[in-house]
Amino acid sequence: MSLLTVGTVAFDDIETPFGKADRVVGGAATYISLAASQFVNPVHVVSVIGDDFPEETLALMRTRGITLEGLQVREGEKSFFWAGRYHHDMNSRDTLTTELNVLADFDPVVPEAYRKTPYLMLGNLTPAVQKRVIEQMETRPRLIALDTMNFWMDSALDSLLEVIGMVDMLIINDEEARQLSGEYSLVKAAEHIQNLGPGTLIIKKGEHGALLFHQEHIFFAPALPLAQVFDPTGAGDTFAGGVMGYLAQSDELTFDNLKRAVIFGSAMASFCVEDFGIQRLRTLSSQEVRDRVHRFAQLVHFEV
Amino acid sequence: MSLLTVGTVAFDDIETPFGKADRVVGGAATYISLAASQFVNPVHVVSVIGDDFPEETLALMRTRGITLEGLQVREGEKSFFWAGRYHHDMNSRDTLTTELNVLADFDPVVPEAYRKTPYLMLGNLTPAVQKRVIEQMETRPRLIALDTMNFWMDSALDSLLEVIGMVDMLIINDEEARQLSGEYSLVKAAEHIQNLGPGTLIIKKGEHGALLFHQEHIFFAPALPLAQVFDPTGAGDTFAGGVMGYLAQSDELTFDNLKRAVIFGSAMASFCVEDFGIQRLRTLSSQEVRDRVHRFAQLVHFEV
Repeated sequence: MSLLTVGTVAFDDIETPFGKADRVVGGAATYISLAASQFVNPVHVVSVIGDDFPEETLALMRTRGITLEGLQVREGEKSFFWAGRYHHDMNSRDTLTTELNVLADFDPVVPEAYRKTPYLMLGNLTPAVQKRVIEQMETRPRLIALDTMNFWMDSALDSLLEVIGMVDMLIINDEEARQLSGEYSLVKAAEHIQNLGPGTLIIKKGEHGALLFHQEHIFFAPALPLAQVFDPTGAGDTFAGGVMGYLAQSDELTFDNLKRAVIFGSAMASFCVEDFGIQRLRTLSSQEVRDRVHRFAQLVHFEV
Repeated sequence: MSLLTVGTVAFDDIETPFGKADRVVGGAATYISLAASQFVNPVHVVSVIGDDFPEETLALMRTRGITLEGLQVREGEKSFFWAGRYHHDMNSRDTLTTELNVLADFDPVVPEAYRKTPYLMLGNLTPAVQKRVIEQMETRPRLIALDTMNFWMDSALDSLLEVIGMVDMLIINDEEARQLSGEYSLVKAAEHIQNLGPGTLIIKKGEHGALLFHQEHIFFAPALPLAQVFDPTGAGDTFAGGVMGYLAQSDELTFDNLKRAVIFGSAMASFCVEDFGIQRLRTLSSQEVRDRVHRFAQLVHFEV
């Protein structure tokens, strides 16, 4: 099955305790599509860039079965840019700069050929833009997943709730789940959020793993304990891309398969943080992914 | 096999977002021995109380196979007392009052009959007191486990490092592991701490579960996602008591059995937080414990 994703394709300046990297290729749709293409193709991207984005990255994406007919290129304009600094614990970060540039008036256009794609991943963007993508689909996708952030809960809650009501799966972090639901317990938060529409909720907890709530079932996926987290940028999008790529490839929406998807997503995220930006995703082999999934299985295995 | 534990037997004033309870029976050795007695007996307690401690609790302990010959009772003096207030997130708390009382000059005496006990759990106390207990053992126990806290890292690091060098297993939380090792990554922290002596290290992460490091192996035990944490007081000691009770009962120190012990400890802790103080531990049946362990197994189970 194919996957369609909308999200940013952008540049990041990243500062971590281990170093600093400027104008690193990033963006939600970049990470999502690269991670998903590990499992499935084609992966269609709908996004917008300026004329400053490196052709080399676009070529890499194409070689991995990522199609870019939905990628608008604005001549004479600049791509979206974010600069951030991670704290020592790598779990919190300060945003130093956000330049919307081409994103300021982004109007997503889903190419004709993509409008029946069965799997749709809406990366973090203005809820109104996410909604416009759903509305352009000719056939209702088998699965629509959505990522968002606290910024939209603060500034556009009504339209966020509207688009949440239109999707099947929400993928957010623990802090966002607590803010969206007003509940501290993640069990209560999940119940609240599932009542907003999505039958499936994934709560990402960074180094503490992820919780999958599907109908009345709960599954917990650990994070791999790592000696070093080099750069957490894109880990959440890589996770989402891995989950959706795995689901699009296997095309099975049972709880058992959703669990596997979350483990594959966690494995992809654990690779992402090993190097700056998308570097680690460039060279990842299927064997490496399978070996890492095996480590996840070993990590939590016990017999009573 | 029998288990010997040293630690406080005390009173707590507890304030949580759900209510307030004064002069609740608590203390590390109370929680440890009650949790351990779910699995094994006898459990020998070495501690000290004033003449204010309720006979009813001591009677409860005796009915569960907890022996109190090592419990010093000081006439005309008061038991150790702690008062604390939990924040909304239940993961952090403020200490409002600490009255050492009988603990101020506590000199532990291990009764003759306990000096060959094969399993020894040293609850959080002055490192010098923990060391005096080890020194009184006639036969080196098969397993010595130790709990401690950041207070001793700040105020008595040399004697803490000395006693850590004498034990087989250290049970501390993530913040303490980071402080003790000077490493943020828990994988690096574990390596550092194992080099201090203990071949086995358990890092408790509260609602995020626990990591077991044994020689070169790693195991992750999740925490059960709970709709409500009523009172976290004693959860860490209940966890340690469950781990040590399970190990003393099964008397097998393989990695596979240590993993089971951590799961049983996690199950015991998940009951502890359901009510104030030791209330939930009073009536717990073996069947309830087995059912909960089954829920832990379900929570992380996946097949690839």
